[in-house]
Amino acid sequence: MNRIYFDNAATTSLDAAVLDSMMPYFTTHFGNPSSIYSYGRESRLAIENARKTVAKLLNAHPAEIFFTSGGTESSNTAITAAVRDLGCKHIITSAIEHHATLHTVEHLRHANEAALSYVKLLPDGHIDLEDLERLLAESKEKSLVTLMHANNEIGNILDIHAVGNTCKKFSAIFHSDTVQTVGHFPFDLRNTPVHFITGAGHKFHGPKGVGMLYVNENVKIKPFVHGGSQERNMRAGTENLYGIVGFAKALELATANYETESAYIKDLKLYMIEQLQKNIQQVAFNGDVLGNSLYTVLNVSFPKTEKSEMILFNLDINNICASGGSACTSGADTGSHVIRAVNNDPNQVAVRFSFSKYNTKAEIDTVVGKLKELI
Amino acid sequence: MNRIYFDNAATTSLDAAVLDSMMPYFTTHFGNPSSIYSYGRESRLAIENARKTVAKLLNAHPAEIFFTSGGTESSNTAITAAVRDLGCKHIITSAIEHHATLHTVEHLRHANEAALSYVKLLPDGHIDLEDLERLLAESKEKSLVTLMHANNEIGNILDIHAVGNTCKKFSAIFHSDTVQTVGHFPFDLRNTPVHFITGAGHKFHGPKGVGMLYVNENVKIKPFVHGGSQERNMRAGTENLYGIVGFAKALELATANYETESAYIKDLKLYMIEQLQKNIQQVAFNGDVLGNSLYTVLNVSFPKTEKSEMILFNLDINNICASGGSACTSGADTGSHVIRAVNNDPNQVAVRFSFSKYNTKAEIDTVVGKLKELI
Repeated sequence: MNRIYFDNAATTSLDAAVLDSMMPYFTTHFGNPSSIYSYGRESRLAIENARKTVAKLLNAHPAEIFFTSGGTESSNTAITAAVRDLGCKHIITSAIEHHATLHTVEHLRHANEAALSYVKLLPDGHIDLEDLERLLAESKEKSLVTLMHANNEIGNILDIHAVGNTCKKFSAIFHSDTVQTVGHFPFDLRNTPVHFITGAGHKFHGPKGVGMLYVNENVKIKPFVHGGSQERNMRAGTENLYGIVGFAKALELATANYETESAYIKDLKLYMIEQLQKNIQQVAFNGDVLGNSLYTVLNVSFPKTEKSEMILFNLDINNICASGGSACTSGADTGSHVIRAVNNDPNQVAVRFSFSKYNTKAEIDTVVGKLKELI
Repeated sequence: MNRIYFDNAATTSLDAAVLDSMMPYFTTHFGNPSSIYSYGRESRLAIENARKTVAKLLNAHPAEIFFTSGGTESSNTAITAAVRDLGCKHIITSAIEHHATLHTVEHLRHANEAALSYVKLLPDGHIDLEDLERLLAESKEKSLVTLMHANNEIGNILDIHAVGNTCKKFSAIFHSDTVQTVGHFPFDLRNTPVHFITGAGHKFHGPKGVGMLYVNENVKIKPFVHGGSQERNMRAGTENLYGIVGFAKALELATANYETESAYIKDLKLYMIEQLQKNIQQVAFNGDVLGNSLYTVLNVSFPKTEKSEMILFNLDINNICASGGSACTSGADTGSHVIRAVNNDPNQVAVRFSFSKYNTKAEIDTVVGKLKELI
């Protein structure tokens, strides 16, 4: 049986056109982008063109785009800089953030560099914006609000404009982990009230090991990784040249094909919801599944039985890739911190299915048929 | 005229066999190494095999090897951890370290996290080991000694065993930036008194954007980049799967061919010294050029004239890649901090030539001929 890959929120396949764009830099164009001779400047040019491409696609200024080793480093950089360089001594976050955010803010609290508050969640997993406003109003210190644009497990999408405007009202700094939305939704950063957003190439058919940090031109921060003068003194280390070229190419392709691909993938998600409801009793969905939600992610709860507890294992045996939560923490036995926060029902087992342009309805039929058998 | 690439200390070409080893992970094997299904475990296995390979080649334990985004991140991690997690409140370094070290230790001093001392240099650019011992003996705090194994500009090689044993005597932590020696010299870490060493794939015909940090099993540190549980909770972020596979393959090839390749490259270096001395008056060499020195690096001083001041520019016009110092800082106008520290002669112009297995004596003849013309 062919593999069915329904874990595109964990990582995506590399688009062949993206790999093609990277190949010259693996072979003939290997110069160090920081070398001043023309052969190095060709590499520099490739990076600066990638930066311009990314900036244009997100409607930002090239000087606001920094390349990093991935979404995690980007979030570490933004959050740490907000505390150390921008004077935020109070961090407001939520219990359903990615660990790249949660472990960073916990580290800063532990080091007594900032106080930490968690905003309340609504029953559908959305952020309680009134509680956010209350927390900001009560804060005696300059605050950093760090809330992800779309949750990687349940798919809920934050109203980034509403949160940004609330932050503005209280002169708070706003960082949003946009790893699940960059490359999946259009961005208009010039008209979005946010200070930091992040991206990871491998989430939208680009390469692993490369990410992006957007830093709004109105904030000035210091590097997180110290050393050479790469990335205009903001991120030291010889650049991941191929990765950066691939990141820009993947974002270009994703943006060009957004309308058709997002409609196609959304249709897959709706079809799977329909088929699950038709075929499996007591199936439920986590998060605001039909509302403001990623078209790529479907988080399903099955009634807990001896069989359903083995569901991921049995899907794997059947060559179906799906996950219990974030891949970044899937080694842990404690289950998903997101599902615990939004739906702490001990009688349910949650499975995340996440789709890409390469998936089909036939695959969904196979998976739902198999689930029916397994549950 | 074909390009002559004599800047292999800045970066090297990717070996075709290394690219071949990476290709499956760009195409068919894209699973997230942290995903628990078998498709993800295949990626995990590739990473753990890479770790075992690297550990074996360096005679370390796999649990001591961590993959990072590059040498700079590795040094940032080691130095920061020595101060924050291992209680080193005094850092001893030298003025000729790479900026990945210097800017990190300066940052920590600036943040009042550690005091900072610079060990004296001998006239040939080697570290004054007596001064190091004196600094350690006088230190009232636990010290971190951070001294590079081989200088990237002048090529001088540190006696890592002597420094390590001195550190041991004073219970100091020892970090060595080994970016220019990993993949160029044999390592026997089990029998080397060092706590941290670093590596960067692109310095030995491996990929850019991936590095290694060795952490001796006797020290326990916390992550520098916070988030997911990758690298046994030590380095968060989805792994640069292809990069890690390529790093291990490149180190494997370098180690297998060490005897022949190092002899071949050393011969090139000696030939260039000879040809320069024959053909160019008043040529001089920086560092311990015929002594304990990298076989890959030759740092040459020319008498300062109107012509020699334009030498890098004119070499570039002639499609010859060489550098004035570290690529990481070559954008700066201030010249090399290393050359200033070891040979502050305003009447000389320094150029670094650095070689790889792909260079030839015919190329050296061409370059020396061109230099004769240009000087």
